[in-house]
Amino acid sequence: MKAFVAGGAGFIGSHLVDRLIAQGAEVTVYDNLTSGKEEFIQQHNENPRFKFIKGDLLEPALLNKSVVGHDLVCHLAANPQASEGIRQTRLDLEQNTIATYNVLESMRINNVGKILFTSSGTVYGETAGAPVNEEHGPLLPISLYGASKLACEGLTSAFASLFGVRAWIFRLGNVVGPRATHGVIYDLLQKIKKDPTVLEVLGDGHQTKPYVHMNDCVDGMLLCLRRAQDPINLFNLAPSTTTTVKDIVRIVLDSTSHKDARVRYTGGVRGGGGWPGDVTRVQLDCTKAQRLGWNPKFTSNGAVAQTIRSLLEHGS
Amino acid sequence: MKAFVAGGAGFIGSHLVDRLIAQGAEVTVYDNLTSGKEEFIQQHNENPRFKFIKGDLLEPALLNKSVVGHDLVCHLAANPQASEGIRQTRLDLEQNTIATYNVLESMRINNVGKILFTSSGTVYGETAGAPVNEEHGPLLPISLYGASKLACEGLTSAFASLFGVRAWIFRLGNVVGPRATHGVIYDLLQKIKKDPTVLEVLGDGHQTKPYVHMNDCVDGMLLCLRRAQDPINLFNLAPSTTTTVKDIVRIVLDSTSHKDARVRYTGGVRGGGGWPGDVTRVQLDCTKAQRLGWNPKFTSNGAVAQTIRSLLEHGS
Repeated sequence: MKAFVAGGAGFIGSHLVDRLIAQGAEVTVYDNLTSGKEEFIQQHNENPRFKFIKGDLLEPALLNKSVVGHDLVCHLAANPQASEGIRQTRLDLEQNTIATYNVLESMRINNVGKILFTSSGTVYGETAGAPVNEEHGPLLPISLYGASKLACEGLTSAFASLFGVRAWIFRLGNVVGPRATHGVIYDLLQKIKKDPTVLEVLGDGHQTKPYVHMNDCVDGMLLCLRRAQDPINLFNLAPSTTTTVKDIVRIVLDSTSHKDARVRYTGGVRGGGGWPGDVTRVQLDCTKAQRLGWNPKFTSNGAVAQTIRSLLEHGS
Repeated sequence: MKAFVAGGAGFIGSHLVDRLIAQGAEVTVYDNLTSGKEEFIQQHNENPRFKFIKGDLLEPALLNKSVVGHDLVCHLAANPQASEGIRQTRLDLEQNTIATYNVLESMRINNVGKILFTSSGTVYGETAGAPVNEEHGPLLPISLYGASKLACEGLTSAFASLFGVRAWIFRLGNVVGPRATHGVIYDLLQKIKKDPTVLEVLGDGHQTKPYVHMNDCVDGMLLCLRRAQDPINLFNLAPSTTTTVKDIVRIVLDSTSHKDARVRYTGGVRGGGGWPGDVTRVQLDCTKAQRLGWNPKFTSNGAVAQTIRSLLEHGS
């Protein structure tokens, strides 16, 4: 298999690359390194099955040339900061929606037949914390990040249908694990390192979400890629358990031995959320992936705890 | 009320403008006249409550300036040719998705608090002809037109949620009526005018869809705008009846007195559809709008017959 991984130097992308290389695939990483890092993929530099192209998805000429000859595109490139849309409203449109159009168009031009796309549970918008499966509607995202992921799903679906591409779309929970470069765990660890006496936490602490460990996430994607063979394959991927921000704060303080730090919650902007557009209570019903054999090893709390340990050991 | 109607010189837009003017509103039409026509709105030229700006939604500077001072934006501008996406894959991304982003951004900048957006039943993708209501999922459009309308819904939802805009989103059936400039009825009338002996029909004739008459469509939108006051209001709008393409052919031949014309079906490209991306069997459950008091006067067949009469009388 020749896999092209857009965003392959990023947080999730680089882990997927590790696994694809371990499985014997030839892998081309295409990344503009705005949030991805060369150090996440440098372990493969000497491998003849590995190739890195520093490129932007908003440069179609380079992209179209680079995609030639692959049989699977894994598209994980995106603006990773879901909270940023309120300040830069065009960001997600460009880096997610238009970039994804360019990826799909490059596949059409070059007859690449398969795409794996990482969407997000944010497409569901407010669901009052009820578990939602892949058939849930209406889809009314409350962030521009969620809106752009929904747009990308629609584009993927239409290209798949019109041009005979097979698609695997994953609506991920909050992915955590080694190499995290953003997100609540990363932010809290940075803050407590700076000032071990006070920990400021966005929101009211009651935000409740499923955190999926990177290993489970990559397991799930590769398992569904092997076993699901519909023209369009759509899966939620998250553990059935959830974690509150208060839980995360507790695990962070325990793990860093700063149990005496004063915790200050900023208060919620929307139902207790940390930022406008934040869906505060999320639960993804992943029965569909489980029926296919996906069996995540980490609970949500377990994924959080292991991530904190890993970031403290290896730095973030 | 000061209403800004993007696409106000178009097929649906111009009818909405007629009604808004009749209700006493001040109306600004913003249209690039690529598919809209000045003759559709010229009846209002002398009205001091009417203003026309020839402008493109892809020119943000002009758009942002023009939106100032309105309290409702009705956004009906779009590429009207849903079948064109397969040839020009970037068309719907530009004219629908990016244009809609520009509209929403102009509203944010200028503090306009309400948007009416015309989406489409094509967001549902293949539904095997089962009636679908607004909660149907997953949304896997099979045309780039449908994908772009889904993207616009997501953008509208996110802007509404982030910036306090109230939104009315309408997933329309096939809208027909006077001033049609595209669509199956228009195409068949053009063809039979050119050659009254042979009528070539795209697909196998079994495509089955709900055709909603323009008057009912505009009634429905204005009724929901008055009566539905959720932050985001999403409605299907179509009659509960449907019409096959064979029915349309029969009504066209009857109405044009060309009953002896030989009808040649091209055969279907996808489940009998006329073009790739065509959803061949559609039924929209409109209970939600009906509960609010919407009571369409035309059946689907009635809407088709009245449209044919009107286009034959007044030209198309």
